[in-house]
Amino acid sequence: MTALLELRRQVCDLHAELVRNNLVTWTSGNVSGRVPGEDLFVIKASGISYDDLTPESIVVCDLDGKLVDGELSPSSDTDAHAYVYRNLPEVGGQVHTHSTYATAWAARAEPIPCVLTAMADEFGGEIPVGPFALIGDDSIGRGIVQTLSGHRSPAVLMQNHGVFTIGKDARAAVKAAVMCEDVARTVHIARQLGEPLPIPAADIDRLYDRYQNVYGQ
Amino acid sequence: MTALLELRRQVCDLHAELVRNNLVTWTSGNVSGRVPGEDLFVIKASGISYDDLTPESIVVCDLDGKLVDGELSPSSDTDAHAYVYRNLPEVGGQVHTHSTYATAWAARAEPIPCVLTAMADEFGGEIPVGPFALIGDDSIGRGIVQTLSGHRSPAVLMQNHGVFTIGKDARAAVKAAVMCEDVARTVHIARQLGEPLPIPAADIDRLYDRYQNVYGQ
Amino acid sequence: MTALLELRRQVCDLHAELVRNNLVTWTSGNVSGRVPGEDLFVIKASGISYDDLTPESIVVCDLDGKLVDGELSPSSDTDAHAYVYRNLPEVGGQVHTHSTYATAWAARAEPIPCVLTAMADEFGGEIPVGPFALIGDDSIGRGIVQTLSGHRSPAVLMQNHGVFTIGKDARAAVKAAVMCEDVARTVHIARQLGEPLPIPAADIDRLYDRYQNVYGQ
Amino acid sequence: MTALLELRRQVCDLHAELVRNNLVTWTSGNVSGRVPGEDLFVIKASGISYDDLTPESIVVCDLDGKLVDGELSPSSDTDAHAYVYRNLPEVGGQVHTHSTYATAWAARAEPIPCVLTAMADEFGGEIPVGPFALIGDDSIGRGIVQTLSGHRSPAVLMQNHGVFTIGKDARAAVKAAVMCEDVARTVHIARQLGEPLPIPAADIDRLYDRYQNVYGQ
Repeated sequence: MTALLELRRQVCDLHAELVRNNLVTWTSGNVSGRVPGEDLFVIKASGISYDDLTPESIVVCDLDGKLVDGELSPSSDTDAHAYVYRNLPEVGGQVHTHSTYATAWAARAEPIPCVLTAMADEFGGEIPVGPFALIGDDSIGRGIVQTLSGHRSPAVLMQNHGVFTIGKDARAAVKAAVMCEDVARTVHIARQLGEPLPIPAADIDRLYDRYQNVYGQ
Repeated sequence: MTALLELRRQVCDLHAELVRNNLVTWTSGNVSGRVPGEDLFVIKASGISYDDLTPESIVVCDLDGKLVDGELSPSSDTDAHAYVYRNLPEVGGQVHTHSTYATAWAARAEPIPCVLTAMADEFGGEIPVGPFALIGDDSIGRGIVQTLSGHRSPAVLMQNHGVFTIGKDARAAVKAAVMCEDVARTVHIARQLGEPLPIPAADIDRLYDRYQNVYGQ
Repeated sequence: MTALLELRRQVCDLHAELVRNNLVTWTSGNVSGRVPGEDLFVIKASGISYDDLTPESIVVCDLDGKLVDGELSPSSDTDAHAYVYRNLPEVGGQVHTHSTYATAWAARAEPIPCVLTAMADEFGGEIPVGPFALIGDDSIGRGIVQTLSGHRSPAVLMQNHGVFTIGKDARAAVKAAVMCEDVARTVHIARQLGEPLPIPAADIDRLYDRYQNVYGQ
Repeated sequence: MTALLELRRQVCDLHAELVRNNLVTWTSGNVSGRVPGEDLFVIKASGISYDDLTPESIVVCDLDGKLVDGELSPSSDTDAHAYVYRNLPEVGGQVHTHSTYATAWAARAEPIPCVLTAMADEFGGEIPVGPFALIGDDSIGRGIVQTLSGHRSPAVLMQNHGVFTIGKDARAAVKAAVMCEDVARTVHIARQLGEPLPIPAADIDRLYDRYQNVYGQ
């Protein structure tokens, strides 16, 4: 049970990165993390202020999205997270935000073209758009899984809605959410005054391969 | 009298959310709250710096906007707040700001179209525009009340001026002011590079209904 | 001499408002204040980081811009401040910044039209543009004085350069610099998606008159 | 060895300026500094969070970019820094960022025109664009050196990538990176609503000469 408490603490603390990177407003946005070796994940409770977040505000759900431990109702996005954990076993963490620039691309249902080397590094190509889907059943989760299948990108722009990101753990998904907003903003600003130059597909491949295998410690 | 002091403290503290969310500059912007069970409300004093705000800077007025308790002159927007409390008995709190993006829509007298699911959740449709009105009598209050009648939106963009929001209490009005600027910014940015896709009216209804009744604890 | 030390401390502290309101980058920007009853003013020393600012970094100059007290060289904008104090006896404080949005209007030599009630309140009309002028003699000071003559605005956009503001004291000039950037940003954003509606001249007059005489404590 | 430790501490601390000035996201961006009198330089280790940076995260490399002291792998941009130190002996410090507005110009491969006096002061003309170059060999370093040869600008926009700046020491390179983003943003915003006025070449020369020789203490 100590490992679970530690995961709840980690996921709790990672929400501070959403705040620090200006990805969330009021109580929107959430982070979840799969419990290693169990059919469970932890996720932010619904409608809690980031100031008031404690490990107790990170509740435990099964892969159908049902609350199994915790006093509070889970995030209203829990069904989407659960669907992704059920269908993508390699995913260990997820993030959802309405971050400004990424959501602006999503409002136009326009993928973000890969015109920055940092974008090739992290996303390996464009950031794709998923369908318009209502909350309340598996629609959002299904749209995420279908859109990310066949893409290197750990981020998807859900039409008229916002961003969902996946990663091997919650921290990787947070990084993808932070980088997604960063490239969404830079490419938006580049396009305000003209057309950014494309990066050849073979160079995107080289950059992605190197970054995934060489960067860091 | 303890309940009144507690309300003054709450309204005082809520101004910090305006600062934190970058909705106000210098001393512009104010929060008010109705005193439950009495024909009174509390509101920020005029021209006080947010750094210097204490519960004593939150003065008590009657529903004609006349000061009834406090050493300081009330906000120059007091008449507008008073008119709204007199005419909309369900309103328990109000906020006024000149937040950047919302005020930019107001300068063009253009309503913000509902093209984000988060906007459907909170505003239930577009954010409407109220008339140009001078300070100094009931004109602004009347414009707010007339515009919000028949709208789900708790926010109105007053032409060439800024935003007024209402709520069941002061905290709800602050949330509406924060979310109004957030969607004003995202929709503005979306429209800079093309036309956002509309959300069908029936889906806006479903999103609004669910958010108002299911979200949170 | 205590009054002079107090003024140096006030002017020192007011630089923190430039930082907090994101009006300055690195060491650009400065505040000065006239010494009441003497032909002297105090101004930031040249090239000092805002972190390192102490009352000792605020040096004393005569109205020809010559250093009369202090160990450090005065701001490279001292000649401009001195010219304004010599020629506008009602001015008790000045601020100079390269704040982003105001400087963007200055780069196009385009005055900011008065399309916001907050702008009518503080500036009483458009914010005018002064000439292109090189540093090193009276050119900048002369451009400021000539442009502000016959204007209510306490701010002038110097072409290709940045903003100078004046006030009855240093704090009033800081307020004008903060509000200038705020309205420069809001009107810029409003114009990105269309033309803001004008405010009739008679209403600008009413707003300006009321704000200058009724607002605050 | 005390001087080397002091340099590692300085370079470590200078990364905080990148964070404070919003030039970096997650772990992107780095500062390096030449070790005076030796064929060595110090540089940030790869993929370390700015929160976790200590002098031990600043490792020592020779001018071929090989690690000679430190437990951690050096930045993936080390080859580029090494090439510049080998080929430009007057360079004592370098900075690399993907700061938003400068990178937006780089995505279009468009130099930033010199339309601000602050830009004439610091850059002495336009900020030039270097070629598209892949990481992994001398391509980036060679592009930096070739582009900056014959330019006063201490900053170069590498196509589709980001900014590299040089200086007499690491602090000067940080200042150039901060000012580069500042002018990239202001000129971008100016151009959104029209064409900024040019500054005559002779005036750019006068401003640059004065700023390099008179400004500061």
